[in-house]
Amino acid sequence: MTTKPLQIAIAGLGTVGAGTVRILQQNSDIIQSRCGREIQLVAVSSRDKGKNRGVELGAIEWKENPLELISLPNIDVIIELIGGAEGIARELVESALKAGKHVVTANKALIAKHGLELAALAEQHNVMLAYEAAVAGGIPIIKSLREGLVANRFHKVVGILNGTCNFILTSMWKEHKDFHTVLKEAQAIGYAEADPSFDIDGIDTAHKTAIITSLAYGTSINSDAVYVEGIRHITPADMEFADKFGYVIKLLGISTQNEQGIMQRVHPCMIPKDSTLGRVSNAYNGIIVEGNAVGRITLEGAGAGAGATASSVVGDIVDIARGVVYKPFTLPVRQLAKVHFSTLDSLESAYYLRLTVEDKAGVLAAITAIFRDVDISVSGFVQQDDDSDVNHKQIVITTHETRESSMQNALKLINRLDFVIEPVNMIRIEAI
Amino acid sequence: MTTKPLQIAIAGLGTVGAGTVRILQQNSDIIQSRCGREIQLVAVSSRDKGKNRGVELGAIEWKENPLELISLPNIDVIIELIGGAEGIARELVESALKAGKHVVTANKALIAKHGLELAALAEQHNVMLAYEAAVAGGIPIIKSLREGLVANRFHKVVGILNGTCNFILTSMWKEHKDFHTVLKEAQAIGYAEADPSFDIDGIDTAHKTAIITSLAYGTSINSDAVYVEGIRHITPADMEFADKFGYVIKLLGISTQNEQGIMQRVHPCMIPKDSTLGRVSNAYNGIIVEGNAVGRITLEGAGAGAGATASSVVGDIVDIARGVVYKPFTLPVRQLAKVHFSTLDSLESAYYLRLTVEDKAGVLAAITAIFRDVDISVSGFVQQDDDSDVNHKQIVITTHETRESSMQNALKLINRLDFVIEPVNMIRIEAI
Repeated sequence: MTTKPLQIAIAGLGTVGAGTVRILQQNSDIIQSRCGREIQLVAVSSRDKGKNRGVELGAIEWKENPLELISLPNIDVIIELIGGAEGIARELVESALKAGKHVVTANKALIAKHGLELAALAEQHNVMLAYEAAVAGGIPIIKSLREGLVANRFHKVVGILNGTCNFILTSMWKEHKDFHTVLKEAQAIGYAEADPSFDIDGIDTAHKTAIITSLAYGTSINSDAVYVEGIRHITPADMEFADKFGYVIKLLGISTQNEQGIMQRVHPCMIPKDSTLGRVSNAYNGIIVEGNAVGRITLEGAGAGAGATASSVVGDIVDIARGVVYKPFTLPVRQLAKVHFSTLDSLESAYYLRLTVEDKAGVLAAITAIFRDVDISVSGFVQQDDDSDVNHKQIVITTHETRESSMQNALKLINRLDFVIEPVNMIRIEAI
Repeated sequence: MTTKPLQIAIAGLGTVGAGTVRILQQNSDIIQSRCGREIQLVAVSSRDKGKNRGVELGAIEWKENPLELISLPNIDVIIELIGGAEGIARELVESALKAGKHVVTANKALIAKHGLELAALAEQHNVMLAYEAAVAGGIPIIKSLREGLVANRFHKVVGILNGTCNFILTSMWKEHKDFHTVLKEAQAIGYAEADPSFDIDGIDTAHKTAIITSLAYGTSINSDAVYVEGIRHITPADMEFADKFGYVIKLLGISTQNEQGIMQRVHPCMIPKDSTLGRVSNAYNGIIVEGNAVGRITLEGAGAGAGATASSVVGDIVDIARGVVYKPFTLPVRQLAKVHFSTLDSLESAYYLRLTVEDKAGVLAAITAIFRDVDISVSGFVQQDDDSDVNHKQIVITTHETRESSMQNALKLINRLDFVIEPVNMIRIEAI
């Protein structure tokens, strides 16, 4: 008995698209024997047909309009690697699902924004909407939450989910450079986009966090309910103080479930230097999953790049070739709980605050009085001269665990003090 | 439309068996909604019906003879948690597969020894033989190799795969105690068996390594072709010297594929203290997978214990409930390559040697002459008094990368020198 080849078409031949073609070609022998049938790339679509992408497209059909891929005869799977939550990517995925084609995508924005409607379409047509590559590149986190760790009641998933931010923060840390210098360097070598805001403002991490939340807790995906803070405000001074306290600064996506509810947040965190995530550097991603049966599982690997992302794309294609069809968010869409997510007000966290103040008497007394009044307990204190101005001092305060709402009150009061030169730089300290 | 419940029976109610019952009960709501059907534990088998296992068996049928589980009406899955490569465990799995029942097992010895015949039976009857729990407890390594990372040509899988050994080595390291003291302590708290040889002599790790090799490279499983060395010969002195050189000692299972062929080995290794695996402590397991698309992926988590192992057992059950049937070793059994595994002779490694010698002139000259003659380049050297005997000295030598065969020659020659009091203690240094 021979099984008929799986026919696929790829829309978008950027880094990931070309990487996917390369892996399908380079590893075709093992992929075919592992899934028991041939995977035939029959067509591609990209803006520029002639562009050299370092892969041989040979006899593979080329379409200028990605939507034409859907109507090719016998196409089983559409691989959407165009990107963007709207426009042609969305239209392509929607049309493909409606036409009863399986879809594989690496598009986190699309899944975070329109995942539910798309999943409903996929369910209706009994096809797969697979998106392993959308979260944490080559790390099989979607599969782990949906399958390998499926027995667990999860209470926390926390991760370094954006390679660009982690690369920038690692460089700032190692080379003692400021954010803007490092961002420019990252852009020059292709680790950051020309418009980097999606990454550095935490939006990309928020999309991934929202996807993880839905899979972990069975909730409707809601990326608007993610608290988001990016990394623009992190300074070399913060890096140095973090180091002094035994911490390193990472942008984390954190999704938790406890008695108070489910909370999704993305912000820079100080975490112990020698913790598992503290040691995930450069463009690498790392994720910790906590479940009531398995305890704590850590997954680490390349979070971006052609090979790692293509590895996940092809993994999804092989699932389809093997005849596996999962519900995109594990539960049927209509069973996903529409919860009211907890806001950050109820967060209990320790905090780092860096204040730039005039060098005069009574400063510390005024600040500590505020902490006393809002009932926040200080755990550490450092004062040092400000290199940039002899009349200024830098004060760094760390606190014990306290309520975010109390901290926000304290910040308002401190920022109003007349000797405070710049708004306080606050970074949460996360016990990992 | 309702889907009929999946009916399962568990044979063996030891730690993992009772843990599996507990997770199925505690998390029944989420498990059911995630797999879209109920999982009904209808029968169990264990030696002692009355024993208190901390789980409520209620109306669940009890059978003294596990084989009777197979002939219960409507049983879909037999969960084998008895253990052992032969005897009743083997008979049960074989009979269950022949009767067309899916099988889930945590039994690495059985899979390593008889996996191929069993897989052939499973294929023949189109049922699943699932064994995620057999390797690295709660870490979804089988699923990752077979599915998530399936696009990759693998060249190395290396792991800390035995919780008992890692617990013992970690305790020796932290508490500066000798092997036998720590082993006794581990036995007292249930981290080591009364007969610990399976774990501490590396056999268990070899079984797991053989399973990983088969999945990674598509070869016939062959645990007899694993080079195996246990941890009995590791001393506090080795721990201290390792520390001095920046290393820590771990028992690793290493499976590699390169131009020379496929090599499987299990032995204690010195690895950098601050490396990913160097930091996996206590009963935790860690695995690094290297593939040509994804690069390096690290998975870390509890390698043993009721909860973690049950997490994997239930993960397999859910796969079956979802209607997924994979080939047990990814490829059909008849396609698994019967390769001739490389022996350790062709290994290129750096080495640590600890010699106990008489304190007299000419010792170092004689040893270095041997290294010159067999063409081994020394990278480090430490000499210190032997606390236990004033007439003895401890010499530690580390080498650059060299051939194992040359090292074995050197060891023979050194052990023959009349001032060498004890056979050299050699530990391989692994670049991780």
